[in-house]
Amino acid sequence: MIGEIIAIGDELTSGRILNSTSYFAASHLYGAGHEIAAMATIGDAPEMIGKAIRESIERADFVVVTGGLGATSDDKTTKAVADALDRPTTFYPEIFEKIKESQSFREMPSLEKLAWLPSGAEILKPGEKIAGYLLVYNKKPIFFLPGIPYQMRELMLDRVIPRLAAWSGDMGLVRQKVYKVFGLEEHVIHGRLASLEKENRLLRIGYYPVSAEVHVSLTVRGETGQEADQSFSQSDIGIKKALGDCIYDEDGNSLEMIVGKALRDRGFMLGLAESCTGGGLAHRITTVPGSSAYFSGGIVAYTNKMKECFLRVRPETLEKYGAVSRETAREMAFGACTSIGSDVTLAITGIAGPDGGTKEKPVGTVYFGLATPEFVRDFSFLFTGKRDMIQTKSAMTGLDLLRRYLLKLHLPDS
Amino acid sequence: MIGEIIAIGDELTSGRILNSTSYFAASHLYGAGHEIAAMATIGDAPEMIGKAIRESIERADFVVVTGGLGATSDDKTTKAVADALDRPTTFYPEIFEKIKESQSFREMPSLEKLAWLPSGAEILKPGEKIAGYLLVYNKKPIFFLPGIPYQMRELMLDRVIPRLAAWSGDMGLVRQKVYKVFGLEEHVIHGRLASLEKENRLLRIGYYPVSAEVHVSLTVRGETGQEADQSFSQSDIGIKKALGDCIYDEDGNSLEMIVGKALRDRGFMLGLAESCTGGGLAHRITTVPGSSAYFSGGIVAYTNKMKECFLRVRPETLEKYGAVSRETAREMAFGACTSIGSDVTLAITGIAGPDGGTKEKPVGTVYFGLATPEFVRDFSFLFTGKRDMIQTKSAMTGLDLLRRYLLKLHLPDS
Repeated sequence: MIGEIIAIGDELTSGRILNSTSYFAASHLYGAGHEIAAMATIGDAPEMIGKAIRESIERADFVVVTGGLGATSDDKTTKAVADALDRPTTFYPEIFEKIKESQSFREMPSLEKLAWLPSGAEILKPGEKIAGYLLVYNKKPIFFLPGIPYQMRELMLDRVIPRLAAWSGDMGLVRQKVYKVFGLEEHVIHGRLASLEKENRLLRIGYYPVSAEVHVSLTVRGETGQEADQSFSQSDIGIKKALGDCIYDEDGNSLEMIVGKALRDRGFMLGLAESCTGGGLAHRITTVPGSSAYFSGGIVAYTNKMKECFLRVRPETLEKYGAVSRETAREMAFGACTSIGSDVTLAITGIAGPDGGTKEKPVGTVYFGLATPEFVRDFSFLFTGKRDMIQTKSAMTGLDLLRRYLLKLHLPDS
Repeated sequence: MIGEIIAIGDELTSGRILNSTSYFAASHLYGAGHEIAAMATIGDAPEMIGKAIRESIERADFVVVTGGLGATSDDKTTKAVADALDRPTTFYPEIFEKIKESQSFREMPSLEKLAWLPSGAEILKPGEKIAGYLLVYNKKPIFFLPGIPYQMRELMLDRVIPRLAAWSGDMGLVRQKVYKVFGLEEHVIHGRLASLEKENRLLRIGYYPVSAEVHVSLTVRGETGQEADQSFSQSDIGIKKALGDCIYDEDGNSLEMIVGKALRDRGFMLGLAESCTGGGLAHRITTVPGSSAYFSGGIVAYTNKMKECFLRVRPETLEKYGAVSRETAREMAFGACTSIGSDVTLAITGIAGPDGGTKEKPVGTVYFGLATPEFVRDFSFLFTGKRDMIQTKSAMTGLDLLRRYLLKLHLPDS
């Protein structure tokens, strides 16, 4: 079904509050196989609210409205709806009984307002202390949810999604999955998957670059549940074949979580030696709770002196090849492995810019060293973008090299 | 002026990406004295884009449109505008010259698309590699900005806000400033500044929590430029008196930039010893270009063994007081200062959670050590929030302690 989302509140239009509820609604509706054509945010102005709802429900199959359901004077949604859709407010005694029981009613008699809803409204969670109702207009559902994020989320998941599934008769006919991909650019992924989409009209693939990685979503619809299942498993095989081990996750894990799990599984302790990423890789590793079980620590060696003292890089190497070189990356990795006593160690040295680039080694040149007590390998990359993007790509490439080593996948040539 | 904001992109309506650009635009437009009546988010559908822009510019005094200005097939804003507002696209040779110079053009000839804009469009930053233009329709301005957050922000602050001020004839009658505040909670700041706002009807103060800090905006209007100036300088004095040295910046600098500048001014090299922040502080320091001039590096010592070997923390200290203790923080700072050879060193050790808390030292307990070759001091804090917020608050508090030490401001009691 095609839907629209309307969020109401001056706190949103004045930029005081970031609108995360519309985002939550959109992602879950999309996940359930619906399409959101438009999202609107409107201040506490009854006429604009009414007009927006009327126009949306004419265009779309359903509308989700959040906010403006409270008891204070700036909560205007119900009144606006009553006027715009010609559904005069009616007294709901079952709501009033609940309100009378509550402590707050004595202090705030204006709470009675909550017992008045547009006529024909169906309370979404009757008997519970949570505002929210469904209004059917021209045979189409309009869901009114509170603006308070956790209440809105609860009703969205427990009531709106199931009701919409029943509405469209779609229950069980949509399958969806998100693949996280690292190491391939968006246009390359698109090139590899475009034919899949052409072959199957029930299939939809989305491409979403997020920082230095790309998330690929697969949505499949079937006329029957069996058809959906079959089409889904075919497409899943097709996508995995096309993208191979560049897919690092299909279950909502980050790259640092995948690396953490692999270290834990193999019983390894990790050590790091960072120069141009300045601790950015260590920072990512340690955002994961429990990372102390597999992370010894790292050396952020910004100066040559620190590279010599803490990572045992030889002064001759620094002099002959420079701090940003394949040779220094190797010595950093091996030195850190020995001095930290870790089972596996990654080193990064590069030119994050904006200054420091040369003709031979332009900004974005980054060398990696991967060492265990038995061996050391090196890798080189040339990244594009500004300083923060080069630092991000470097840290994530470091994670990906670790993932490939730990899971015994293909490692790039040096 | 009354404005509307339109964000374009399937990645927004599918709930893949949280729309932070509209929020940024709304808060800054509001701060500059404008009112936002409505915000819309629309997928990559040219007809809906065109219709939304036409309707918005009829209702509002100005419109800001973000997204859909790129070179790929799903970037449809310019074409939609050309059709909806009857402004056929025209070739802009000056843009094409810039594109031809770039490396990417050879790989992606479709970039030529960027040189075609609706006729009458005024490029917002001519000569720079950043898309964005102004179109005047029915004597009202429509600003088209890229959806990439950092580019959108740059144009918003450098071009849109000043142009709108000139448009409304407000130029000279509005004064605005943003104070960045660290170390005071929003409600405390509000409590200290509320009276200022009551005393002066020409003044408006906005409060915007950003990560672990609060940005306070001051907007003053005057009937004349002189009145605006006078009122502004009075309010400025009032705010500075109320918030004191918790204001760390008034010119758009981050805390890490302020610390970097202070280190540079004093000719000091910084060293770090991090445990619970896992390199997060080093990472912040090194996001600033040129930080190698004042940053030696740091040790991320996650294990006790690393604290002993690299930071010279005594095993007895770890055993008697624990890794998270005032005593360990002091030894980490002093040890790092000696082993790195830095002029000033900050150490952080704490419990970021979710596990590891005890009754005596609950999750959020963090100790800091500040050392120079001559002295060492310690500080303790109890932060609230989840793991990532405790890590962020710890890293930013570390920066603030450095700022206070380097600028000879008041340091908290230990």
